Amino acid sequence: MKKAWGGRFAAETDARAEKFTASIGFDKRLFREDIEGSKAHAMMLGRSGIISPEEAAQIVQGLDEIKQEISDGTFVPDASAEDIHLNIEQRLIAKIGKTGAKLHTARSRNDQIALDEHLFVLSAVLEIRKAILALREVLVNRAEENLGVIMPGYTHLQRAQPVLLSHHLMAYFHMLTRDDERFKEAGRRADMSPLGAAALAGTTYPIDRSWVATKLGLSRVYENSMDAVSDRDFIMEFLAAASICMIHLSRLGEELVLWSSEEFGFVEMDDSFATGSSIMPQKKNPDVAELIRGKSGRVIGDLVSLLVTMKGLPLAYHSDMQEDKERLFDGFDTLRACLQVAAGMLQTLKFKPERMKEALKRDYSNATEVADYLVSRGMPFREAHEVTGKMVRYCLEKRMPIGDLSLDELRRFSPLFDDDIYGLLTPEACVARRNTLGGTAPEQVREQIRTAKELLSQTRSELLQDV
Amino acid sequence: MKKAWGGRFAAETDARAEKFTASIGFDKRLFREDIEGSKAHAMMLGRSGIISPEEAAQIVQGLDEIKQEISDGTFVPDASAEDIHLNIEQRLIAKIGKTGAKLHTARSRNDQIALDEHLFVLSAVLEIRKAILALREVLVNRAEENLGVIMPGYTHLQRAQPVLLSHHLMAYFHMLTRDDERFKEAGRRADMSPLGAAALAGTTYPIDRSWVATKLGLSRVYENSMDAVSDRDFIMEFLAAASICMIHLSRLGEELVLWSSEEFGFVEMDDSFATGSSIMPQKKNPDVAELIRGKSGRVIGDLVSLLVTMKGLPLAYHSDMQEDKERLFDGFDTLRACLQVAAGMLQTLKFKPERMKEALKRDYSNATEVADYLVSRGMPFREAHEVTGKMVRYCLEKRMPIGDLSLDELRRFSPLFDDDIYGLLTPEACVARRNTLGGTAPEQVREQIRTAKELLSQTRSELLQDV
Amino acid sequence: MKKAWGGRFAAETDARAEKFTASIGFDKRLFREDIEGSKAHAMMLGRSGIISPEEAAQIVQGLDEIKQEISDGTFVPDASAEDIHLNIEQRLIAKIGKTGAKLHTARSRNDQIALDEHLFVLSAVLEIRKAILALREVLVNRAEENLGVIMPGYTHLQRAQPVLLSHHLMAYFHMLTRDDERFKEAGRRADMSPLGAAALAGTTYPIDRSWVATKLGLSRVYENSMDAVSDRDFIMEFLAAASICMIHLSRLGEELVLWSSEEFGFVEMDDSFATGSSIMPQKKNPDVAELIRGKSGRVIGDLVSLLVTMKGLPLAYHSDMQEDKERLFDGFDTLRACLQVAAGMLQTLKFKPERMKEALKRDYSNATEVADYLVSRGMPFREAHEVTGKMVRYCLEKRMPIGDLSLDELRRFSPLFDDDIYGLLTPEACVARRNTLGGTAPEQVREQIRTAKELLSQTRSELLQDV
Amino acid sequence: MKKAWGGRFAAETDARAEKFTASIGFDKRLFREDIEGSKAHAMMLGRSGIISPEEAAQIVQGLDEIKQEISDGTFVPDASAEDIHLNIEQRLIAKIGKTGAKLHTARSRNDQIALDEHLFVLSAVLEIRKAILALREVLVNRAEENLGVIMPGYTHLQRAQPVLLSHHLMAYFHMLTRDDERFKEAGRRADMSPLGAAALAGTTYPIDRSWVATKLGLSRVYENSMDAVSDRDFIMEFLAAASICMIHLSRLGEELVLWSSEEFGFVEMDDSFATGSSIMPQKKNPDVAELIRGKSGRVIGDLVSLLVTMKGLPLAYHSDMQEDKERLFDGFDTLRACLQVAAGMLQTLKFKPERMKEALKRDYSNATEVADYLVSRGMPFREAHEVTGKMVRYCLEKRMPIGDLSLDELRRFSPLFDDDIYGLLTPEACVARRNTLGGTAPEQVREQIRTAKELLSQTRSELLQDV
Repeated sequence: MKKAWGGRFAAETDARAEKFTASIGFDKRLFREDIEGSKAHAMMLGRSGIISPEEAAQIVQGLDEIKQEISDGTFVPDASAEDIHLNIEQRLIAKIGKTGAKLHTARSRNDQIALDEHLFVLSAVLEIRKAILALREVLVNRAEENLGVIMPGYTHLQRAQPVLLSHHLMAYFHMLTRDDERFKEAGRRADMSPLGAAALAGTTYPIDRSWVATKLGLSRVYENSMDAVSDRDFIMEFLAAASICMIHLSRLGEELVLWSSEEFGFVEMDDSFATGSSIMPQKKNPDVAELIRGKSGRVIGDLVSLLVTMKGLPLAYHSDMQEDKERLFDGFDTLRACLQVAAGMLQTLKFKPERMKEALKRDYSNATEVADYLVSRGMPFREAHEVTGKMVRYCLEKRMPIGDLSLDELRRFSPLFDDDIYGLLTPEACVARRNTLGGTAPEQVREQIRTAKELLSQTRSELLQDV
Repeated sequence: MKKAWGGRFAAETDARAEKFTASIGFDKRLFREDIEGSKAHAMMLGRSGIISPEEAAQIVQGLDEIKQEISDGTFVPDASAEDIHLNIEQRLIAKIGKTGAKLHTARSRNDQIALDEHLFVLSAVLEIRKAILALREVLVNRAEENLGVIMPGYTHLQRAQPVLLSHHLMAYFHMLTRDDERFKEAGRRADMSPLGAAALAGTTYPIDRSWVATKLGLSRVYENSMDAVSDRDFIMEFLAAASICMIHLSRLGEELVLWSSEEFGFVEMDDSFATGSSIMPQKKNPDVAELIRGKSGRVIGDLVSLLVTMKGLPLAYHSDMQEDKERLFDGFDTLRACLQVAAGMLQTLKFKPERMKEALKRDYSNATEVADYLVSRGMPFREAHEVTGKMVRYCLEKRMPIGDLSLDELRRFSPLFDDDIYGLLTPEACVARRNTLGGTAPEQVREQIRTAKELLSQTRSELLQDV
Repeated sequence: MKKAWGGRFAAETDARAEKFTASIGFDKRLFREDIEGSKAHAMMLGRSGIISPEEAAQIVQGLDEIKQEISDGTFVPDASAEDIHLNIEQRLIAKIGKTGAKLHTARSRNDQIALDEHLFVLSAVLEIRKAILALREVLVNRAEENLGVIMPGYTHLQRAQPVLLSHHLMAYFHMLTRDDERFKEAGRRADMSPLGAAALAGTTYPIDRSWVATKLGLSRVYENSMDAVSDRDFIMEFLAAASICMIHLSRLGEELVLWSSEEFGFVEMDDSFATGSSIMPQKKNPDVAELIRGKSGRVIGDLVSLLVTMKGLPLAYHSDMQEDKERLFDGFDTLRACLQVAAGMLQTLKFKPERMKEALKRDYSNATEVADYLVSRGMPFREAHEVTGKMVRYCLEKRMPIGDLSLDELRRFSPLFDDDIYGLLTPEACVARRNTLGGTAPEQVREQIRTAKELLSQTRSELLQDV
Repeated sequence: MKKAWGGRFAAETDARAEKFTASIGFDKRLFREDIEGSKAHAMMLGRSGIISPEEAAQIVQGLDEIKQEISDGTFVPDASAEDIHLNIEQRLIAKIGKTGAKLHTARSRNDQIALDEHLFVLSAVLEIRKAILALREVLVNRAEENLGVIMPGYTHLQRAQPVLLSHHLMAYFHMLTRDDERFKEAGRRADMSPLGAAALAGTTYPIDRSWVATKLGLSRVYENSMDAVSDRDFIMEFLAAASICMIHLSRLGEELVLWSSEEFGFVEMDDSFATGSSIMPQKKNPDVAELIRGKSGRVIGDLVSLLVTMKGLPLAYHSDMQEDKERLFDGFDTLRACLQVAAGMLQTLKFKPERMKEALKRDYSNATEVADYLVSRGMPFREAHEVTGKMVRYCLEKRMPIGDLSLDELRRFSPLFDDDIYGLLTPEACVARRNTLGGTAPEQVREQIRTAKELLSQTRSELLQDV
C-alpha cells in the first residue's frame, strides 16, 4: 500500500521493518474512537471554513459508512497499511474521492492517536467502574444475607479474634470503593482533548479545538501542544489504578482458595465456578479464584512495561509510545474480566457457617477478652497480656479451650478473675462487644452496610450520567 | 530486651531471627508520628474515662519529653527492641512507671503503625507538593525570561518544526501540574485514621475514634477495622504517583543530557551543577541530569516491590507488610531530592539561543509550511505532502535549505508557488503562524504563562492552608 | 463440550467462567510440542506393556494425522474445549475410538503441559540464539568494513576520547556474546523432562521416563515429581535473559536514534528501514530503532508478570501458572523480532565517516593526551589533570582547539611542553596509542575481530548440532 | 574537599548537587575491593616500569595501612569527598605524599569502579552459594529424618494424592540446586577484569591487564574497553538469579505460614523463630516465614530498578549507573539473610505427623487409585475417571471416605470392583505404589536423598576451592 509519507523516500520499506512497525494488528480496535474523532474534526473544519460545509458533510457520511462496514465486517482494515488511521483515510478516499484527502488537514497522526486513546480510556474507565459496581453490590448483598455468621478473624493467618463474615466481606467493599474513586479521578484527568496539537507545535489553520472537544464530550483541551502529543500519563495512571485493584482481587482470590481447602472448608465454590482434574476424580479446583490471583502479575507487568517504555524519552512524540496500546488493552481486558467473574463467583459461592463456628470452638481467639477483663479490673495492659499468655500456654499443654478452665484454675493466674469472665468468652460475646465505630459488632456492620448502600446508589447515578 | 508478647513463649528468640524481624533500624524515622498518635490516643483514653485524666496528662508529658530526647539524641531507640513503638513505650514506663503501660489500652501495633504511616504519607505529600511547586515556578520563570528564543522542535529526535523554547519548557510545567494533582488526591485518600481498629476487629473499650482523628488533623476514620489494618493502598498510590513523576523527570534529565552535548549545544550546565572527570580534563558532565534520569528506576522499583509484597496476602495484617516502610521512605526521599536538584539545575542553566538559531538555519523544519501553502492554494493535503517530500529530497541532494530554491525551481514541483512563499519559511514565521489554542505562537505561550501563574498561586495557597 | 473431569460435578460451568479459564486461545500454539510429547508417551506405554503395541501404533498414527490437520487448517481446535490437550485427545477419540482414551494413562495435564513448555523453550532458545548469531555477524562485518573510521567516544554523552567506529560496534558484539551464553545455559537447564510426574506424585504404572526423555531429545528427567509440575524456573530464566538482551538492544536503539539526528548525523537509516511523517514531509524517522528501544519495556513487563504470578504459590500445580504461556510467547516473539530487524537495520545502515571526523576537529577529546604527556615528563597524574583542565578552560574561552595553541601559550601552563606534543593531538594518534589489550587502537580492534570470528564459527557449529 | 577534576571549572559545586551526586554514603562498602584492586594496579605499574618499584611498594604499603585504618575505624571516609576512590587516594597522598598521586596513572574511575563491583559480585556469589548450601543441607537432613511421614499432597490447594513429607521437602532442594547453578554461572560470567579500559578507550601506558587480573584471581579480561566500562550485565544477572531464588523462598514461606495455621496444623514454629502479638496473648506468629515471603518483593524491585536504569543508555559510562550499587547491596543482603533464617527456621521446625495423618483419613486423595484400578481391569482411563468422579460425589453426600463403601455399593458404580480394591486405598499403599523415577514412593525418595548428598558434597568442594 502506498505510504502517507513517501515523497521524500527513494526505496521501499523492508518487509520485516514494515511488519515490525505496523500497528494495525492492534490499533484496529480503536476504529470507533478514530472515526468519532475524525467526524468531529471534519465538522469543525467545515464550520471554520477550512473546507466547505459540503465537503465536511461528505466526509462525515463516508466515515459513518466505514464505521458500519468495519462493524459488520464488509471492510477489513488492510494489514499492509501501517495503522487504523491510514486504513480509514484510504478507504474514505476510495469512497468519496479527493475530498477524503482533505480530512487530514490541520492534524497529524500524533494528535489523532492521542485523541483515540483518550476516548478509549474514558470508555474503559466507565466499563471498569460498572464492573467494580457490580462486584461491590454482590459484596454488600452477601454481607447482608449472612449477617449472623461468625468466623475466625486472622492476622498472620493465625486465628486472632472472632469477626462477622459480613465484616470480612465488607473490608473488600471498602477497598473497591477506593478503586472506584481512583478510576473516577483517572478518568477526570484523561478527559482532555489533544486534537489540534498537530505534530507537536499546533497548526496554522484557524481551527476551533474547544468545539471539537465539546462535540466529543471532552471537558478540556491540552494547553500545550507538545505536552498533548507526548503525554501518556493518563494510560500510566489507568494501569496504576488497575494494578492496585488487581492487588485487592489477588487477596480475595487467595482467601477463596484458602477457604475452599479441606482444611479451612469455609466455602464451597459452586460447580459452575470450579473445574475438576483430568486425573484425580475427586478434585474440585478453585481455578477461577486462582486465575484472578495470578492475573495480578499480568496487569502489574503491563504497568511496568509502559513505565519502562516512557522512561527517558525526549519530547515530543516517539515511536516507542506505540507500545502503549497493547498494554492498555491487556490491562483493561484483564481487569474487567477478573471483576466480572469475581462477581459471579461470589454471588454463587456457598458459605459454610457451621464449619466456621466449629473452628471457633477449638481456638484461643477469645484470649484478648481475658486480657481486657483483667485490665478492666485495674491491671495495666502489658501485665494482663503477660498473664493471659501464660494461661494460653497452660491450655495448649492441656489441649483445652480457655472457657473450660475452672475458676480455681483461672485464679491461679490472677486473683482478679470472677464468674462473670465466662460470659465474655463466647464468639458471640467477643463480636458483640467490639461495638465502636468500624468494629465487628453486628450493630456496626449493619451501619456499614447501610452507608455502603448509599455509596452504591451514588455511584450508580454517577455512572448513569456518564453514559 | 523483654518482649511485649512473651507470656505464651517458652524459649528465647533466635538472634538471627530477632535481627531479621526487627524494624527499629528503619521505623525509628516515624518517632514523631508515633508520639503524636500516642498523645492523641492517650488524651482520648482520658476523656473517655478509660484511664484517668491525670494518667493521660502524665503519659502526654512523658511522650513530649521522649520526643525531645530522641530529637536531641539523648535517648537513642534501642536496637534490641523490635520497633519504634516498643522503644517508646518502654522508655515511657521507665520514666513514669506503671501508668505508662496503660497507653497501649484499646489499640494494637497493627492500627498504631498504620496510623504512623498515614501521618507520614500526609506530610510526605505536602513536602512533595512543595518541591513540585518550586520546580513549576522555575519552569515558568525560565519560560518567561526566554520568550523570544526559538529552537527546533523534535519528534523521533528528528527536527520537526520550530518551537519556542518557552513552549518546550512549559510542556514540563503541565506534566508537573498533573503530578501535583495526583499527589493532592493521593493525600486526600490517605487522610483517614485507622486508629481504633486495634488488632483487626475493633476494641471493646468505649473509645472515640473521630475525636482522635480530628485531633490529628485527619478528616475521616476507616469504616471497617479489618480494612484499616490491612490497607496499604495509600502507599501504593503514593509510589505510583511518584513513579509517574519520575518518568517526567527522566524525560527532562534525558533532554538536558542531550542538550548539554557538543552536538546539540543548546545549554550549558552551570559549574555548580556539573562535575568533571578524574581522567579527562576537558569533561563537564551533566551528572545531576543523568542521576535524575537514572533514579527513575529506583522509584519504579520501590513501587514494584510493594505491589509484589502485597500480592495475594489474606486479611488482615501480615508481617510481609513491614516491608512497606523502607520502600516508602526511599521513594519519597528520592523523588524529593530529584525535584529539588532539578529546580536548582534549571534555575542556573545557561541557554544558548544562538546555537538553537543556528540549528534552524540548516534544517527542513519549515517543510510543513510549504505543504500547508499548497493546501491553501487548493491542493489536497496528501498530495501537497507528497510534492513537498520530493522537494526536500531534491534539497538534500543539493545540500541547500528550501528557502534557497529559486521560484523557478519551486515551480518545477508545483505551479502553485508564488513569491509570497518565502515569507513563510523563516523560523519566526513558522512559530508565529501556529497561533491557535495551545500552539507555539508567542501570543499563545504568553497566555499559557499567564494561566500557569494563576495555577501556581492557587497551589501556593492550598499548601499554606495545609501547613 | 464434555469436560474431562465432569463426574464429580452436578452443574454446568458458567459461560463467563469457562471463557475465563480456557487456555485454548493461546496454548493452541503448542500443538506440535503437545503431539510430539504424546507420541513419545504412547510409544513408551506400548513398549512398557501398559497398552498394547497395536494400540500405541494406532495412537501415534492418529496423532500424526491430527498434527497435519491442524497445520493445514482442516481441524481447528475448538474454542469450547478448555485447552489444546483436550482438543487433541477428543479429536483422537473421534478418529480412532476408545483406544484414544488410553493415551492419557499414566500422565496428567500437569506434567503434560510442563513438557510442552520445556520443548517450546528449547526451540525458542535455538531460535533466539540464531537471531543473536545473525546480529553478531552483522556487527563483525560492519566493524571489519569500517576499520579506518574514527569517531568521538562518549561518556556522559560528552565527547571523551576518539575511538574507532569498529571498536564501538564491537562492544555490542561482546554484549550479545554474553546473551548467547545466557540463553545457551538457560536452554541447558530447560533440557529436562517432567513427564511421568503425573499430577504431582508420580504414577503407579511401570513407565520408563528416561526412554521418553531420550526419544524427545531431552538429556535428563526431573528427579522429583512435585518439583517437575510446579517448576517454572526455566521460563523465568528465559525471560530474564531476554530482558537483559533487550537492555542491550535498547542501548543500541538509543544510539542509532541519536546518531540519526541532524545534530549527530553519524548515520543515515536506509530508506527501507525508516518511515516518514504524515504531516511533515521532510521527516525520516528512525522508527525501527525507536521501537526496538521501546519494546524493552514489553519484555521486562513479561518477566515481572511471571515473577509476580509465581510469588507465594504453594506446591504443586496452581491455575495461576497458566498465565506463564502468554508471557513466554510474547517475550520470545518480541525479542526475536527485535534481533532480526536490528540485524537488517544495521546491515543497511549508512555510516557517515566525514561527519564523525568533522566532529573530532572541534572538540577537546584529545585533552587526556596532554595530561598523559605531562605525566610522561614526570608530573604526577592528578597535577597534570589540573593543568590540562585549566588549558581547556582557556581554549573554551578563546573558542579554539588545543592543537592551535602556540608552544609559548602551552608553556604558560607548564614548562614541560615541547614541540613533540603536537604529534600526539590528532585523532589518529589518540586512537593508535591506545594499543593495549582491549584498547581502541586499530591493531587491537583487528585482533578483537579475529577472535570474534572464531567465536562466531564456534556458535554456528553449536547451533547446527542442536538442530 | 578539593575535586579530582577541578581544573576546568570556575565555580564551586552547589551543596545540594554535591550531596545528590556523592556516592560515598554507600560505595564505602567497597573499600576492601577498591584497595585490593589498587594494590594490584600499583604493583603492575611498578613491574611495567610506569612507576618505579619503590614507588609501587610505597603505594602498596600505604594502601594496606588505609585498609587497616578503615577496618578499625581510625580513618573514616569523608562524606565531603565524592566517593570511596577519592577518599582512599586523598588519604594515600596525605600519608605518602606526591607518589600517591601516581596511583591513578593508566586508569579511570570508570574501570576502577567496575573492577570493584566485579570483585564484590564474585564474593557475593560465594556467600550466596554458601547460604544456599546450608539450606539445602537442612532440607536433606529434615527429609531424611522424616522419611516415614505421609502428608496430603496438594494441587490448587486441594488435596490431591498422599505424598511423603520428605518428597515435598526435597522439591525445594531441587529448586535450590538450580539456584546454586545459576549463581555459579553468574559468577563465571562476572569473573572478568575491566581494569585497563580506563575511561572508555584503553590507555596509552604499556600496562599488563592480564597480570592484574591474575593477581586478583580473575580468569579473563574484557576484550573491549567500551564494553568493560559500560557493562552491568553481571549485576543484572546476579539480581535475576536472586529474584528467582526469592520466588522459591516465597513459596516456602507461604507453605510454612499455611502449615502453621490452626487449620492445617502440620508444623509448629520453634519459639525461637516466631513472635507474638502485642495485643492478643494467644498468638504465635510465623513472622520469619512471612517476612521471607514478603521480601521477594524487595529483590524483584531491585532487579526492576536496575533494568529501568540501564534501559536506553548510550555507551559508554553514565552517572545513571551509579545507582547500581545500592540495588546490588540490597539484593545481596536480603537474599543472604532470607536464606540464613530459612535454614534456622527449618532446622528447628517441629513437624506434626499425627496431624498430617489425620488429614488423610477424611479425604479423597485416594480417588486416583480407584480410577487406576478400573483401568487395570480394562476400562479406558477417561471412563474410569468419570465413574470415580460419580463415586466421590456419592461419598461426599454421605460424608464418608471411599474405603467405607461396601463392595455392593462399589459395584453399583462398576462391576469390575473386587475385594482387592481395599488394599490400595490406604495412604501407605498410595505412596508406595508411585514407585517410578521421581515418584513419591519411599524407595524413590531414599534414592533422591542419596544423590542429593552427592550433589551437596560436590558443591561443598567447589566452594572450598573458591575460597
